[in-house]
Amino acid sequence: MTPTITAFAASPDRGRGLARDMRVRWALEEVGQAYEVRLLSFAEMKEPAHLARQPFGQIPTYEEGDLVLFETGAIVLHIAEGHAGLLPVEPGARARAIAWMFAAVNSVEPVGLEREACFFLERDKSWYAERMAMLAGRIRDRLGLLSRHLGQADWLDGAFSAGDLMMAGVLFRLKPTGLVAEFANLAAYLGRAAERAAFQRAFAAQMAVFTAGQSGGR
Amino acid sequence: MTPTITAFAASPDRGRGLARDMRVRWALEEVGQAYEVRLLSFAEMKEPAHLARQPFGQIPTYEEGDLVLFETGAIVLHIAEGHAGLLPVEPGARARAIAWMFAAVNSVEPVGLEREACFFLERDKSWYAERMAMLAGRIRDRLGLLSRHLGQADWLDGAFSAGDLMMAGVLFRLKPTGLVAEFANLAAYLGRAAERAAFQRAFAAQMAVFTAGQSGGR
Repeated sequence: MTPTITAFAASPDRGRGLARDMRVRWALEEVGQAYEVRLLSFAEMKEPAHLARQPFGQIPTYEEGDLVLFETGAIVLHIAEGHAGLLPVEPGARARAIAWMFAAVNSVEPVGLEREACFFLERDKSWYAERMAMLAGRIRDRLGLLSRHLGQADWLDGAFSAGDLMMAGVLFRLKPTGLVAEFANLAAYLGRAAERAAFQRAFAAQMAVFTAGQSGGR
Repeated sequence: MTPTITAFAASPDRGRGLARDMRVRWALEEVGQAYEVRLLSFAEMKEPAHLARQPFGQIPTYEEGDLVLFETGAIVLHIAEGHAGLLPVEPGARARAIAWMFAAVNSVEPVGLEREACFFLERDKSWYAERMAMLAGRIRDRLGLLSRHLGQADWLDGAFSAGDLMMAGVLFRLKPTGLVAEFANLAAYLGRAAERAAFQRAFAAQMAVFTAGQSGGR
């Protein structure tokens, strides 16, 4: 059964792959699972039909027959559990890979989200510059600890896993801040992730939505 | 094998159950699994021995033989996978319960963390009051959508699950802000969660650490 995901009809990132459907597309490409995409306007995301699928009115969602899921971590984990290649078979290594999935969305992404909130919602405030500097410091603290853990390894815990996919997805979204580049091993880690054929296919697919939207709008 | 978790030797919440070991204690109590606790000072949490277990220098961790895990979501999921009672058996319902675990830590907790960061780190800033009001608004938006989803149901998706445990854990930490009480059904939901015998045992266990620390310090 071909799953259907939702994505922005007009992504605010202009095809830079920063929207969260990218992580789900990437996971589906890693395991070789074809998928359909339903594009939503910002207005449609707040309508009852979408809120029934995604209670917080966001994208992506994942539909597979009667199953409807939200939260990129949960969707990627569901994909990883249903296909080989994204989670180790050994139970301990599998549990640690899942720990990195949670670490991506709970220990690293929140400081990035806080910076995004400041960037979008507090730009006209007197405190904007001072807070952006404070937030850069908080992001740097987290990235420093992540960099310390990674060391010279290729991936966070053995072979590439859904934990790396989620962490690289979070770092990819942080990349435009310039803060990832301050840690050479994290920049190289993100580079390795983005060089994967599955990442490239996912990136091209989300870019195609933006390009089609551009030409359609002319 | 009896697992060992880590917790604060001196919790900054003074035994109010807001520290994240509470979620893990609660999950272990729900499934009837005995556990040991190793208490850590703030200094010990930043030492290499602990960073090897928890790369971000936080609590709790979970050790079970050779397996070392961090991130409350991953630990609770590991406990739920190894015991009956915290995840539905039906695959679709199981995946949805996991989606609520991720929603707790990625869609609701971050706005609370942002408020905590402001409370602890920006209290002496000129913008403190204005930002605290903005953040209350952001938390209210998220809680409003959660309340809308919950409606008159007892739990988020059918029977009580690890998804409810994680969400109630996040809401419990938000409770002192007074914002949860603005949504009658969320306040009742949290009340139902806190009345569970397993929650009460977990709460008493973490309180005992605080009480012992107090008497030991006199």
